[in-house]
Amino acid sequence: MTIDEIARLVNGRLQGDGSRKIHDVASIERAGPDDLTFAEGARGLAKADASRAGCILVPESVSLAGLTTVAVARPKLSFIRIAAILRPQPAATPGIHPTAVIDPQAKLAEGVRAGPQVVIERGVAVGEGTRLGAGVFLGERTTVGSQCVLYPRVTVYPGAHIGNRVVLHAGVVVGSDGFGYVFAEGQHHKFPQLGGLTIEDDVEIGANSTVDRGSLGTTVIGTGTKIDNLVQVAHNVRIGRHCVIAAQSGISGSAEIGDYVVLGGQVGVGDNVRIEDNVVVGGQAGVSRGSLRKGITYWGTPARPLAELKRMYAHLSHLPGLVAKIKGLERGLPR
Amino acid sequence: MTIDEIARLVNGRLQGDGSRKIHDVASIERAGPDDLTFAEGARGLAKADASRAGCILVPESVSLAGLTTVAVARPKLSFIRIAAILRPQPAATPGIHPTAVIDPQAKLAEGVRAGPQVVIERGVAVGEGTRLGAGVFLGERTTVGSQCVLYPRVTVYPGAHIGNRVVLHAGVVVGSDGFGYVFAEGQHHKFPQLGGLTIEDDVEIGANSTVDRGSLGTTVIGTGTKIDNLVQVAHNVRIGRHCVIAAQSGISGSAEIGDYVVLGGQVGVGDNVRIEDNVVVGGQAGVSRGSLRKGITYWGTPARPLAELKRMYAHLSHLPGLVAKIKGLERGLPR
Amino acid sequence: MTIDEIARLVNGRLQGDGSRKIHDVASIERAGPDDLTFAEGARGLAKADASRAGCILVPESVSLAGLTTVAVARPKLSFIRIAAILRPQPAATPGIHPTAVIDPQAKLAEGVRAGPQVVIERGVAVGEGTRLGAGVFLGERTTVGSQCVLYPRVTVYPGAHIGNRVVLHAGVVVGSDGFGYVFAEGQHHKFPQLGGLTIEDDVEIGANSTVDRGSLGTTVIGTGTKIDNLVQVAHNVRIGRHCVIAAQSGISGSAEIGDYVVLGGQVGVGDNVRIEDNVVVGGQAGVSRGSLRKGITYWGTPARPLAELKRMYAHLSHLPGLVAKIKGLERGLPR
Repeated sequence: MTIDEIARLVNGRLQGDGSRKIHDVASIERAGPDDLTFAEGARGLAKADASRAGCILVPESVSLAGLTTVAVARPKLSFIRIAAILRPQPAATPGIHPTAVIDPQAKLAEGVRAGPQVVIERGVAVGEGTRLGAGVFLGERTTVGSQCVLYPRVTVYPGAHIGNRVVLHAGVVVGSDGFGYVFAEGQHHKFPQLGGLTIEDDVEIGANSTVDRGSLGTTVIGTGTKIDNLVQVAHNVRIGRHCVIAAQSGISGSAEIGDYVVLGGQVGVGDNVRIEDNVVVGGQAGVSRGSLRKGITYWGTPARPLAELKRMYAHLSHLPGLVAKIKGLERGLPR
Repeated sequence: MTIDEIARLVNGRLQGDGSRKIHDVASIERAGPDDLTFAEGARGLAKADASRAGCILVPESVSLAGLTTVAVARPKLSFIRIAAILRPQPAATPGIHPTAVIDPQAKLAEGVRAGPQVVIERGVAVGEGTRLGAGVFLGERTTVGSQCVLYPRVTVYPGAHIGNRVVLHAGVVVGSDGFGYVFAEGQHHKFPQLGGLTIEDDVEIGANSTVDRGSLGTTVIGTGTKIDNLVQVAHNVRIGRHCVIAAQSGISGSAEIGDYVVLGGQVGVGDNVRIEDNVVVGGQAGVSRGSLRKGITYWGTPARPLAELKRMYAHLSHLPGLVAKIKGLERGLPR
Repeated sequence: MTIDEIARLVNGRLQGDGSRKIHDVASIERAGPDDLTFAEGARGLAKADASRAGCILVPESVSLAGLTTVAVARPKLSFIRIAAILRPQPAATPGIHPTAVIDPQAKLAEGVRAGPQVVIERGVAVGEGTRLGAGVFLGERTTVGSQCVLYPRVTVYPGAHIGNRVVLHAGVVVGSDGFGYVFAEGQHHKFPQLGGLTIEDDVEIGANSTVDRGSLGTTVIGTGTKIDNLVQVAHNVRIGRHCVIAAQSGISGSAEIGDYVVLGGQVGVGDNVRIEDNVVVGGQAGVSRGSLRKGITYWGTPARPLAELKRMYAHLSHLPGLVAKIKGLERGLPR
């Protein structure tokens, strides 16, 4: 692909020799004369001068003398688009591996790929072009949409509904029993975990994460939501659309999370907590009760609006000074 | 099942038409005229009026005009009992799947079900009626009791002992090496991890949780203890009976946890910590050393009795006021 | 093995009858007359008197009347060495299980053991004496060195490089996609995750931990680093040599960790954070930005040097007293 073609595809402004050929994408540090890269922000642009990249996607306001650049509104986004062309996902050969164990009543659409040792139980339906990695387990009555990728050893408990273009990474478990017991007569009696699980379109879930199905209701993960590795989503949780949930966060039973919410890593969300749209929660924060208000950034345990937390930390840092002042006051008092 | 029969089974007081038939259980929001549900607490009872449920289990003190109710001491507990009848666990066909790889010397009792790709090594014994999901791995000399359920892809390292009616969810790893090294000559030398693992009767462990075996001693999880998803239990830990450990909590080496202890989500318990019976530890708390005293509720990192922590937070919230007061005092002082 | 032989092997000073035979190793509480144990520190030595051990490895300065001891510089280290002789790792029979699915172009060196249902894709190379447990998945072009142990259900995504003597415990996922998206037009667009993963020699990774490969660069785990269960290592992270990372810690994208760093359990390290050599981070600490300085111990969220944090906690504990003092001052003021 020539740089001219790239500039055209991303609707960018070329500076330098557009006839040059680009074969691959790379980071700004590693890119060579055949590679496309991008530079954004002070840190990225500072590295541009030393880069050997054949072409750099830069913000529209930027001009880098002596380098071949394509100026675009959002360099990283344009980079994603070109990378998808230069490095397409390797095509998987469709077909069912002979070691897969597939119930004769399961319905597999055209172009489904099932790797070695895949297990598909009774009443399952899998959509067109979906790839099931080695050892994927689909319990009874599960439905999986089209163009999904389930990496090796994903386990789907019976009855889950998974939309289109969903990506589940290796070791993910979805649809498992929620954690609910009633204590009586000296022991814990398990509350029935009979509910459903719906994972909507374009969701991605990272390696070894777990999502429980509802107890009586349904656990829902909304369209376009992205979940990192080792995240826990408990029973009856409802996560909205286009959320981002970083690694090792945990969301307790019946919590409700709006759209476009961002949770940092290792965040804890308590039972029945409500998080409104566009909230951002900082890493390791803990939300034990109540609601987080629309569009506000929270941090800390218990989580508070970031502005409030910063004031509290400022006061904390004044504590030693306060102690000294009080001592001075005591000395100054008339006796 | 008629409502009359339900009232008799739970020893409850019927109000309304007992001859009506109930076919299923459901949440109070979703229940229809053929469903049984329950209402407890202010929040639950507030929803009862709008419910279309055929029958509602309510506390003994409650009377809801115009609704068909059965009053019992503990509605949720009675609901569990009826749900178990109306929605019995689907019976699994016993038998060994032809793709399972079972050592000829392993002893499988009557009614054992081993799904596709189960691997059972030499010297293993599995009790009556136990179900092993697809891809379960039982290492050498493992014993598993009767009526257990091991969901797909559970891995049991060699030599573990698992009691009766134990439930291990998908992806659980038990009996893995503990994390112990001695540093010398610039590197970490692995301490031998030769100990045992005992999981007693009626324990349930959530998806992708991990339990290490002892180094020289034995890791023990006591009867009736329930563990949520993604929990870590380190080597030589001893957990007592009927504890509840919520998701993503981690218990470090040689910690001792009594009976009826409750740990919230994402709790961290340090090496050698001792937690006495009936302690409750709030979510995300960290217990780095020492002991937690019997029956007390703790929270925070480092964990403190909840009452003490609340006082500390109250004082913290007074900090800004204190600063203002001190300024006032300074101004008021005679010079 | 006689106690004389043990004393010679560890270069220790014998006290007692050296002709006695030792058959096994055990903890100081459980050791019997045929067992070797060790005692170190006040706590360990206090238990020595009551021990029935045939022989106790003790520090050089210690003499325990009436007991058979071997005094050495580092008892626990010497114990590790003798344990390795008395309890050698059981030899695994090499060979490829008939249910393993191995691409004909994969290169398996001599003495490789591949258990049931192992899947090895095209272009993979596995070194001498490496053991692959049941259900291990090695994606295309992966290389695994010699004398490694991959426990059951380990998943290696395509293209990862794994050194020699690496141990990956059950359920580990390495080489998975990093978590990177660019938000535009109301949704998250996935940033290409095309980079590499290098796990150097003598690394050990605990059960169900996850390590993402680089996005454009490479994720690296340095020689001799030990990682506990349920740990998350994100894309482009670089971990140095001989680090120790306890359970449930999470390291975010592009963080750089030096050599000989120790992270306690449930630690969170933010994007792009830099941790210098020999840093120690206490359990549950959170490092959201910047650098941690060489050789210093940090704790808390946000993480501070331990000395500073202790001062802050001391001031906090004075808060109630401060409030009282200020009240007193206010009463004492002339009006």
